[in-house]
Amino acid sequence: MSNFDKLSINTATIKRASLAEALAATKAAGLSHIGLWRDKVAEVGLEAAVKMVKASGLQVSSLCRGGFLTAADEAGQAAALADNKAAILEAKALGTTEIIMVVGGLPDFSVSPGAVDGGGAAVAVAGGKDLVLARQRVADRLAELVPFALEHGVRLVLEPLHPMFAADRAVLSTLGQALDLAAPHPVEAVGVVVDTFHVWWDPSLREVIARAGAEGRIASYQVCDFNLPIASDALLSRGFMGDGVVDFASIGAWVAETGYDGVVEVEIFNEDIWAQPFADVIDTVKDRYAELVEPYLAVVSV
Amino acid sequence: MSNFDKLSINTATIKRASLAEALAATKAAGLSHIGLWRDKVAEVGLEAAVKMVKASGLQVSSLCRGGFLTAADEAGQAAALADNKAAILEAKALGTTEIIMVVGGLPDFSVSPGAVDGGGAAVAVAGGKDLVLARQRVADRLAELVPFALEHGVRLVLEPLHPMFAADRAVLSTLGQALDLAAPHPVEAVGVVVDTFHVWWDPSLREVIARAGAEGRIASYQVCDFNLPIASDALLSRGFMGDGVVDFASIGAWVAETGYDGVVEVEIFNEDIWAQPFADVIDTVKDRYAELVEPYLAVVSV
Repeated sequence: MSNFDKLSINTATIKRASLAEALAATKAAGLSHIGLWRDKVAEVGLEAAVKMVKASGLQVSSLCRGGFLTAADEAGQAAALADNKAAILEAKALGTTEIIMVVGGLPDFSVSPGAVDGGGAAVAVAGGKDLVLARQRVADRLAELVPFALEHGVRLVLEPLHPMFAADRAVLSTLGQALDLAAPHPVEAVGVVVDTFHVWWDPSLREVIARAGAEGRIASYQVCDFNLPIASDALLSRGFMGDGVVDFASIGAWVAETGYDGVVEVEIFNEDIWAQPFADVIDTVKDRYAELVEPYLAVVSV
Repeated sequence: MSNFDKLSINTATIKRASLAEALAATKAAGLSHIGLWRDKVAEVGLEAAVKMVKASGLQVSSLCRGGFLTAADEAGQAAALADNKAAILEAKALGTTEIIMVVGGLPDFSVSPGAVDGGGAAVAVAGGKDLVLARQRVADRLAELVPFALEHGVRLVLEPLHPMFAADRAVLSTLGQALDLAAPHPVEAVGVVVDTFHVWWDPSLREVIARAGAEGRIASYQVCDFNLPIASDALLSRGFMGDGVVDFASIGAWVAETGYDGVVEVEIFNEDIWAQPFADVIDTVKDRYAELVEPYLAVVSV
């Protein structure tokens, strides 16, 4: 019999829900975790959001998102640091230790830091197409943020994005690259997320998940499918587990082999799913989780 | 002053041209190389195509494409071997030593071997979502083809495709993976192509291009840009050099560092470009090549 103790619904999956509706629907579905986006928090204000979360009894599994660290100019870099420090404090206030980091794209092509996925506008800023330099700037900014994260007990969770987003959202493209980026920093300060949508294609995935586990870096396992054909906004190609190409049995087993027994968060950007009633979406997530994800994880609470 | 001795136009770039028109336009532009697709050859028949190529005086830089080696069933595997042997013989007859290999996707999602890019229909066949197994079958089929390729003096040129095509076109997703796949075989039998559209995002690109050079595997350098936003058919997101996100200066320098001084082939799938007069397309390719590609290559004939 399935147990949903480890399942978390990310608010992006029920994007049209207000924070109150998202908390209520997650609670009504018998779940105990929720992943929050900062825009949902901002809609009611941090103080109110903290009270609402506390009243719900739900545990916040992660806060999305920090990052956007690739600015080539000083003003952009200062703004990024300030925004990430604010995100760290929000995470702490909301009772989660995990802030998901989407590191940003090439300066000429990156969406703006404040953009909400599925609705954000790209803005062109100066800085060129040099990926090597952009990646170095991410490393530099990360090093500047680590002390603040440590001070507040929040982990910067690096999210490698699918290489189709390397120019406009994240120059961090593989889990191996994320581990290299994390390596100089304490595991309490920098982790990685294994998001099936972004990493399923990686020929070295088994080895690099094992490495992430051995190095104590796996902060979150996020599941959703990669749908074909790719949506006209590629970001919205995420689907319910089972609707796309991802081999959840293999990837789940590899994650389980590391001993990971943390929360499994479901974050789906998909117009068709957003149009469905929140309760129906969560029901489908639970069904697919029970069928395709949970059986392959090591620790199944019964 | 630019010299176009090394520049090759792939017929996919002027997709609406017949073989005769493609040969004439390439010749009229003062170029000496052309890359052919098998469908263009099939339109007139191999024998006629060989005569036309000979009469044109152009050198065929590569033949596209062999591959589609992921079938899980015996009939599909036998058909793939037969088709690839035919492709090897066609390449030999057309006077090129290079057959570009697109290895095929997951059996459940792969386009059919005969599909022409930009016009092909996906067909579902049995076999599941197991990428590890699909990749192993590619290695198995490649080993079966190598003796035939060696016998006929044709090189099987492995093309890693961008990871957004890992399910439907090529389970071969990185240049490093291509080199691992090539490793057991002689360099005369198995090479790799560095196609900027597919590999620009790779965090290990500089190192892996150096490895490809050191191992004697670079059979072709193909250039085109990666346009944003991604086209509704992602395959058609290729663009003229300079129109997208690719850093040709860096990648060109890395290729040049290996000592590569072979042909540079331009292969662009793009509806807007296909709608332009062939001569205009080739003129733009020449301009962009002279501005963005040639200056970074080691050996510039003057």
